[in-house]
Amino acid sequence: MSSFRFTIDAECSDSWARAGTIETPHGTIQTPIFMPVGTQATVKSVSPEELKAAGAQIILGNTYHLMLRPGSELIQSFGGLHSFMNWHGPILTDSGGFQIWSLGHLRKLNEDGVVFKSHLDGSYHTLTPERIMQIEAEIGADIILPLDICAPYPCSPAEAKKAMEWTHRWEERALIEKERQRPEQTLFGIVQGAFEPELRQQSAEIIGKMPFPGLSIGGLSVGEPKEQMWEMLNHVTPSLPRDKPRHLLGVGSPEDLVIGVGLGMDMFDCVLPTRVARHGGLFTQDGRVSIKKARFRTEHGPIEEGCDCYTCQNYSAAYVHHLARTEEQLYYRLGSIHNIRFMLRLAQRLREVILNGSYAAFREEFLARYIPASQEIREAQREKWKQAAREKQRL
Amino acid sequence: MSSFRFTIDAECSDSWARAGTIETPHGTIQTPIFMPVGTQATVKSVSPEELKAAGAQIILGNTYHLMLRPGSELIQSFGGLHSFMNWHGPILTDSGGFQIWSLGHLRKLNEDGVVFKSHLDGSYHTLTPERIMQIEAEIGADIILPLDICAPYPCSPAEAKKAMEWTHRWEERALIEKERQRPEQTLFGIVQGAFEPELRQQSAEIIGKMPFPGLSIGGLSVGEPKEQMWEMLNHVTPSLPRDKPRHLLGVGSPEDLVIGVGLGMDMFDCVLPTRVARHGGLFTQDGRVSIKKARFRTEHGPIEEGCDCYTCQNYSAAYVHHLARTEEQLYYRLGSIHNIRFMLRLAQRLREVILNGSYAAFREEFLARYIPASQEIREAQREKWKQAAREKQRL
Repeated sequence: MSSFRFTIDAECSDSWARAGTIETPHGTIQTPIFMPVGTQATVKSVSPEELKAAGAQIILGNTYHLMLRPGSELIQSFGGLHSFMNWHGPILTDSGGFQIWSLGHLRKLNEDGVVFKSHLDGSYHTLTPERIMQIEAEIGADIILPLDICAPYPCSPAEAKKAMEWTHRWEERALIEKERQRPEQTLFGIVQGAFEPELRQQSAEIIGKMPFPGLSIGGLSVGEPKEQMWEMLNHVTPSLPRDKPRHLLGVGSPEDLVIGVGLGMDMFDCVLPTRVARHGGLFTQDGRVSIKKARFRTEHGPIEEGCDCYTCQNYSAAYVHHLARTEEQLYYRLGSIHNIRFMLRLAQRLREVILNGSYAAFREEFLARYIPASQEIREAQREKWKQAAREKQRL
Repeated sequence: MSSFRFTIDAECSDSWARAGTIETPHGTIQTPIFMPVGTQATVKSVSPEELKAAGAQIILGNTYHLMLRPGSELIQSFGGLHSFMNWHGPILTDSGGFQIWSLGHLRKLNEDGVVFKSHLDGSYHTLTPERIMQIEAEIGADIILPLDICAPYPCSPAEAKKAMEWTHRWEERALIEKERQRPEQTLFGIVQGAFEPELRQQSAEIIGKMPFPGLSIGGLSVGEPKEQMWEMLNHVTPSLPRDKPRHLLGVGSPEDLVIGVGLGMDMFDCVLPTRVARHGGLFTQDGRVSIKKARFRTEHGPIEEGCDCYTCQNYSAAYVHHLARTEEQLYYRLGSIHNIRFMLRLAQRLREVILNGSYAAFREEFLARYIPASQEIREAQREKWKQAAREKQRL
């Protein structure tokens, strides 16, 4: 029914890293891969042609946002998200679960589903595992995810267990409904279990055995220290089937990509690269720099010497600095393109080093050089973004 | 010294319309032409490649904004504005005069020059006709304008006369200084005279006889009813030399282009097409439409059937509507590209009808069909923009 296929091209001997190939109805994806996020049917500031030029092989759409605006039926009437937004490569849609817990005002959760209040206009919406399959069928992505319950961080072991078991039951219902909707779509399973090693392992085993062609690891990167996230993957990965692609939901930064690959992850998605770009943060091999800093004012060279992105190939760092300081729209585009290309080139490089057996050395070298944003800075930034989002909602 | 040349390719027999060719160091311009405005070294939301694809032959930079940020010396250190912003076609810079009167806080005007306060940080700057020539030499545009005094609207005949005579004396000084700076740049003269027919005629004759290779008509489109602007051109044009290109400063809308050409104007520049686009106003042959209107929500066709712009060739009106409603950055780009292409296609069409002798018929047909924004709407809009600009300055 489905033209989805995953093959492993190489595996690392001294880590869980692998390189693979995913085939979808809209094209082939070579893993490890980073998936730029197009929340509202657009990767913020960037056109489909620019995504393609930056090496994007698959992008992500957010079901929660799309079902509220412009609505999944409208998208369907345009032949699906691919033609609506003019992106003809593979697309993955999440289930909206994460946004319902974080953005929507949760009203009522029962075995059947969830009633929530839209963050846009306060209207009420009822979602069930079946309804989400209908919505995702209308949106028409190549890879879709089932409705899940993302436990808050921190939470009690009992809460974590309840959310996990609930999610498992909903996933079974999603599997059944999906076959009734559009069998040609590929439904990934979601592994939950919060920060309980035993639950994580259990979830990996249960979901791993269900007939999902791929698996997403959910409920991580929700505010916990990074070490805790990596510890969880240490428990999850050994319990996952080898032959299914693994997607680490909502992760992450350049260093996350490098580390996550070694922990057996194949696919990554995150708004971080485009969001930090919009705030002036641009990736280089030495870490994230702020293009607004005075030292770039007269910089004749590109943001990073040797970078092959459109921005670095065509503009000086001084020009990008000028656009950022004057808050010109072109800045948001040029910054986003640079960071997206950085992530995709990094994914490409990771694939190369897995194929040629030098992943471990590359990982060491990369992490020794790349200075990540500190936990403190990351938390301050997250607070700032939340504040901005709240202000925007009040307007 | 200068490689600037203007040749007239055709003249209309029943109006003052003409089609011409301008040669500059960075390329050839076919007139009539619309020049997109790149205030801060970028045409808002649009890349140089997109400008080119939309048919832009020359763009405008604002001296006032550029000298404050990033500074003309910095631009010079990058080899001028062309390489700084990666636009390698012709550029025209205005003199900053208009912005000094409208944005800067005028402190002191004397025969030598003007001291004003920056709208950005309140710092004081002294400008003289000579200093402006130095600044424009550093920016390095193909066509440059001299410092002028734009009389307020309305103003007394005595005020109008004083401003005009002052401007004339400054223009003589600019001519001398420009030869000392960069003789290869082309300095246009500016015709002033406010809304006094005799002064307008006088200014046209005086400036027309001075050794400027081209002429800009200043001091119009400053808040007066449009009829008054056209009446002024009726007094100006007959007094202008036939063999110099004529630039109508800060004008305008599609209908202004069509009417202005008949009154003998060859070059037009205005932020209006990109500014109204950012607010949802998109041009069609029937007039300006608001893409945010509900009727576009489900529109499968493009913004305008038959439009050859990138936006209309690749996206449905419904998608553009969705982006505009969700305030996605890609909207500002797609809307701006559509309006810029509309203006440039209109200029192209005007050239065609002048060349084939059907300008008068085209003008009649266009104006019968195109419903312009009313004076009332235009004033309300102007107020809204001013308010937004004031708020931005307060932040």
